[in-house]
Amino acid sequence: MGNNLLQGKKGIIFGALDDQSIAWKVAERCVEEGAEIVLTNAPVALRFGGIHELGEKLNAKVIAADATSNEDLENLMDQSMETFGGKMDFILHSIGMSLNVRKKREYNDINYDWMHKTFDISAMSFHRVMQMAMKKDAMNEWGSILALTYIAAQRVFPDYNEMAESKSLLESFARSFGYHWAKAKKVRVNTISQSPTMTTAGSGVKGFEEFFSYSDKMSPLGNASAGACADYCVSLFSDLTRYVTMQNLYHDGGFSNMGMAPEILNLK
Amino acid sequence: MGNNLLQGKKGIIFGALDDQSIAWKVAERCVEEGAEIVLTNAPVALRFGGIHELGEKLNAKVIAADATSNEDLENLMDQSMETFGGKMDFILHSIGMSLNVRKKREYNDINYDWMHKTFDISAMSFHRVMQMAMKKDAMNEWGSILALTYIAAQRVFPDYNEMAESKSLLESFARSFGYHWAKAKKVRVNTISQSPTMTTAGSGVKGFEEFFSYSDKMSPLGNASAGACADYCVSLFSDLTRYVTMQNLYHDGGFSNMGMAPEILNLK
Amino acid sequence: MGNNLLQGKKGIIFGALDDQSIAWKVAERCVEEGAEIVLTNAPVALRFGGIHELGEKLNAKVIAADATSNEDLENLMDQSMETFGGKMDFILHSIGMSLNVRKKREYNDINYDWMHKTFDISAMSFHRVMQMAMKKDAMNEWGSILALTYIAAQRVFPDYNEMAESKSLLESFARSFGYHWAKAKKVRVNTISQSPTMTTAGSGVKGFEEFFSYSDKMSPLGNASAGACADYCVSLFSDLTRYVTMQNLYHDGGFSNMGMAPEILNLK
Amino acid sequence: MGNNLLQGKKGIIFGALDDQSIAWKVAERCVEEGAEIVLTNAPVALRFGGIHELGEKLNAKVIAADATSNEDLENLMDQSMETFGGKMDFILHSIGMSLNVRKKREYNDINYDWMHKTFDISAMSFHRVMQMAMKKDAMNEWGSILALTYIAAQRVFPDYNEMAESKSLLESFARSFGYHWAKAKKVRVNTISQSPTMTTAGSGVKGFEEFFSYSDKMSPLGNASAGACADYCVSLFSDLTRYVTMQNLYHDGGFSNMGMAPEILNLK
Repeated sequence: MGNNLLQGKKGIIFGALDDQSIAWKVAERCVEEGAEIVLTNAPVALRFGGIHELGEKLNAKVIAADATSNEDLENLMDQSMETFGGKMDFILHSIGMSLNVRKKREYNDINYDWMHKTFDISAMSFHRVMQMAMKKDAMNEWGSILALTYIAAQRVFPDYNEMAESKSLLESFARSFGYHWAKAKKVRVNTISQSPTMTTAGSGVKGFEEFFSYSDKMSPLGNASAGACADYCVSLFSDLTRYVTMQNLYHDGGFSNMGMAPEILNLK
Repeated sequence: MGNNLLQGKKGIIFGALDDQSIAWKVAERCVEEGAEIVLTNAPVALRFGGIHELGEKLNAKVIAADATSNEDLENLMDQSMETFGGKMDFILHSIGMSLNVRKKREYNDINYDWMHKTFDISAMSFHRVMQMAMKKDAMNEWGSILALTYIAAQRVFPDYNEMAESKSLLESFARSFGYHWAKAKKVRVNTISQSPTMTTAGSGVKGFEEFFSYSDKMSPLGNASAGACADYCVSLFSDLTRYVTMQNLYHDGGFSNMGMAPEILNLK
Repeated sequence: MGNNLLQGKKGIIFGALDDQSIAWKVAERCVEEGAEIVLTNAPVALRFGGIHELGEKLNAKVIAADATSNEDLENLMDQSMETFGGKMDFILHSIGMSLNVRKKREYNDINYDWMHKTFDISAMSFHRVMQMAMKKDAMNEWGSILALTYIAAQRVFPDYNEMAESKSLLESFARSFGYHWAKAKKVRVNTISQSPTMTTAGSGVKGFEEFFSYSDKMSPLGNASAGACADYCVSLFSDLTRYVTMQNLYHDGGFSNMGMAPEILNLK
Repeated sequence: MGNNLLQGKKGIIFGALDDQSIAWKVAERCVEEGAEIVLTNAPVALRFGGIHELGEKLNAKVIAADATSNEDLENLMDQSMETFGGKMDFILHSIGMSLNVRKKREYNDINYDWMHKTFDISAMSFHRVMQMAMKKDAMNEWGSILALTYIAAQRVFPDYNEMAESKSLLESFARSFGYHWAKAKKVRVNTISQSPTMTTAGSGVKGFEEFFSYSDKMSPLGNASAGACADYCVSLFSDLTRYVTMQNLYHDGGFSNMGMAPEILNLK
C-alpha cells in the first residue's frame, strides 16, 4: 500500500518497544515504503518487548545497543553497515526516560545524579549516535536524521519534570549537529514535536489521561496519533524534504499555536 | 517519475508566471504525482507569462482571477469545482507584490495607500481565498492549504521593506484561519518560509544577487531551490502530513537557525 | 513617591481614555517619575473620556489627533515639540479597535473594507507615528518607543478575530522600524505583550470575563494589571534598558510560556 | 548617582571575577541603587580574581561556594540569610565554563564525561541554586532570580560548541522553575540573553574578536556592554518588572531579530 517513497533507502530505528510505540509504527511504515531497516533498543528493552517479532515480520535485523554506551553504538554502526552492505540514509531516535519522574522526585527536589542519567539516556544519546555515525562515515549524502521531542522544551507542563530539560537539550543537539552534518554530508537533522501519544511509556506519566484529553481539546485537529507520526517521519526521510534542516517540527494538530480553545472553556 | 502521492487529489495553484516561478514547479510536480489542478493568476499576469502553455502541458484549466476581488474568487471557486466535478484537496497561494518597493519608496517614507494595496494583494488575498473556499464549501476533509512566505516576517531584512509586514500578516492569517478550517473540515493551513529564490519576481529586488549569495553562505545546506520547494509542497499536500497545521515551516537549508556562519566571516 | 527615573524626559502618550486605560496609568507613572508628557487621543475619544481632567492633574497638554491622519500627526509632533521646547524621549502607542469585531462579523465572514480600517487604526497608525516623528526629527538620541500588543499575534484566540492580524502587523512594524530608528538615532522600539486587562475596551470583547479568568489561572503569577504594566513601561522608557530593541516583551505573569497549568485541569 | 531603585533589597551575586565581569558591574550597580549584597564564586576563582577588593568596596560579604555542590550552596544560603538578617530579594547567576572547549575538543568529537561536567557547572548549578533557595525558604515574595545566557541557545554559532546546549538547558530551567517559584512565592525567574561581551571569560573563545565585531555590525544599536547589562539587571531586580517571568530577554542591541544587516554585506 506504500508509494515506494523510501525505495532503496536504509536506516536505523531506535526505540521500538511494543506495537504502541511510535518507533514501531515508523518501522512498519518505512518498510512499507520500500526501506530496509535495522531495529535497535537497549538490551533490557529487547527482553520484554516484542521487537524480535517485529524484526521477523519486517525482515529487519535487531541489534541490542545501550544508547549511552559509545562501544555499543560503535558496534551498532559497524553491524548495520555490514547488514546494509554500505552506508545508510536515515536514523530515528525515539528514546526518553526520566529517573526523577520514575522515582517520584518533584521538580524542586531533584536528585542530580539521576538528572545526569536522565540527560544521558534521553538527550546525550542523540549526540552520541550522531557523533558515532559521523566518525564511522555511516550516512549517505542527503540523508535524514530525526528525533522525537515534545513541546515541554518550549513551554511549561509542570508534571513533565526534568524531561522538559531533556527535550530542550535534544533539540539543541539537533540544531548544533545539524550544522556539522549539513557541511559534511548534506545530511539534515530535525526533531518532530509530537502530540502526547498513548504509548506504554507515555501513559505511565502522572495524570496522563486528563492531560491527553486536554491536549486533544486544545488541538484543532485533535492529538496526532502514532500512526500519523509515522507518516510524517516517512515524509521527512524521503527526498521531498531535503532542504528542511535544524528545525523543530510540530506534529500536533495545531496545539503549539493555540492560545485558548473555546472547547476548554466550554464556550463551544 | 512520481510516486502517485497525490493520486486522485485536486487543487488550485495561484501565482505561476513563468518557468522560474515556484508555483510553476509546484504545478508540474503535483501533476507528476497524480493530481488534477487548476491554474490561476491575475488577468494581467496571464497575458505576458507563459501560463497557458503550462496549462496545455499539464492538461490544466487556466482561470483568470484577481485575488483581491471577491467576485473573481467566487467565479474561480465555482469554475474549479465544476472542472473538478466536486470539491478540492489543496490550494497553493504564491502571491506577493509591494507597491512601495516597486515605486522605490523607502521604509521611512511609506505611502499608506500603497501599503494598503500591498497588504491586499500579498496577504489579505490569502484570507479572501480561504473565506471564499469556506463559503463555497469547496474543500474536501483533510485537505491542505499552503502559502509561501519569507523569514522577513520574523527578522529584519531592511530592503524587504513593507513585504516584511505583508508576510507577518500572511502567516497570521494561516494560523487564525487554520483553527477555523480544522474545526470545520479537518483542513490544515500552513506557510512555507522559503529561501530567497531566483525567480523573475525575486531577482527584481535591490541588491538581490549579493543577498542571495549571503543567504546561500549562511544556510548550511545552501539556499533551497524552487524545485526543492515544489517537492516540499507535494509532501504537505499529501496524506503524510495530515496533523501539521497552523505552522510556519522553514524550507531554507537551515538559514533560520544559524546565528553566525564561519563562511560569512571567511573563517572557514 | 517615584524614583526620578524619567527626570528630564519628555514624551507623548497615545490612547488614555479613562482611568481604566493602561495609557492613563502610564501617564500617571511617567509624571510621578519626573517626566513631562503630552496626552493625545482621537477627537471623538477626547469628548467622552476624562482625558482633560487627567491633563490638568498631570499638568500635561492634551492634543487631539486621529492616528490614521498624517496631517493630525504632523500637527501633534509640531505642537508637542513646541510644548516641550525641543525633542522628546519616549512615545507610547496604545491604540486598537476592530470594526469587524464591533460589527459582529465572524472571522470567516470578514468585510475587507473594515479590515483595512482596523489595520489602519490598530497597526498602521504606529508606523505613521514613527514615520512622522522621524521626518520631524522629533526624538532625542537613546529615546524609547513602545506599543502595547497581545499574544494573539503568536497564538490563536478565536474570538480575538482580526485583532490577531493587527497585532502581528504592529509587532512587525516595531521590528522593522526599530532597525531604522536604531541606525538613525539610537532610539529603541519595542512592544509589550500584556495580559488581558480589565479596561473599558477589553471588557467589551465577547466572553471576556471567562477568558480573563482562564488567562489568570494559566499565568503562574496571575494576570498583570494595568498598574503593573505602567511600571514596566517606566522601566522601558528609562535609561536602564537602552540596548533592548526590536523585541516583543511579554508582561503576562508567565502565560506565554505555559503549556498546561494544573489549575486549569483542576489537578491542583 | 543611583535612584534608590533597590532600596532595602538584598541579594546574592554569583560569578564576579574581575572588573571585566558582568557580575562585577551588576554588583556595583545594585549597591549604587541601595541594595545589600553577598558576593560568591568558586573557591579557585576567589583566589586569583579581585573579588575581595570588590567586597570591601561594596561592603559586601564574600562567601566561597562551588555551585555544583549542594553542601556549598546550603552553606551559602545559611550564611547569606544570617548576614542579611532574613530572606533575600534577588539572585544573579553568571556562571559558565565548557571543558570540551577548554580542552579543544570539536563538537563532533565530544568527551561525554566533560560534557556532563560542563552542564553541571554552567546549567545545573542554576537549578541547584534555585532548589536550595526554595528548600531554605530564602526568597522574599515578589523576588527576582536572573541568569545570564546567550542566543546560541536558539541559533547555531559553531564555535560555541557545547555551551549552546548548556544555555538551552539553563533557559529551560528558568522556565520550569519559574512556574514553581511563581506558585510558591510570587518570585519571578528570567534569563538575559546578552550580547557577546569583552570579559576575561568571553575573550578566550576562538575567533572572539572577529565574532565580536560581526555581532556589533549585525546589531543595529551595537553590542550591549557589561555596564548596560548591569543597568538591565537592576530593572529586572526592581519592582518595575514584577509580572515578567519565565522569559528569555534579549539584551543585544537588536541582534536577535536581524536577518541581514546591510553593514555585513558592505551595502551601506
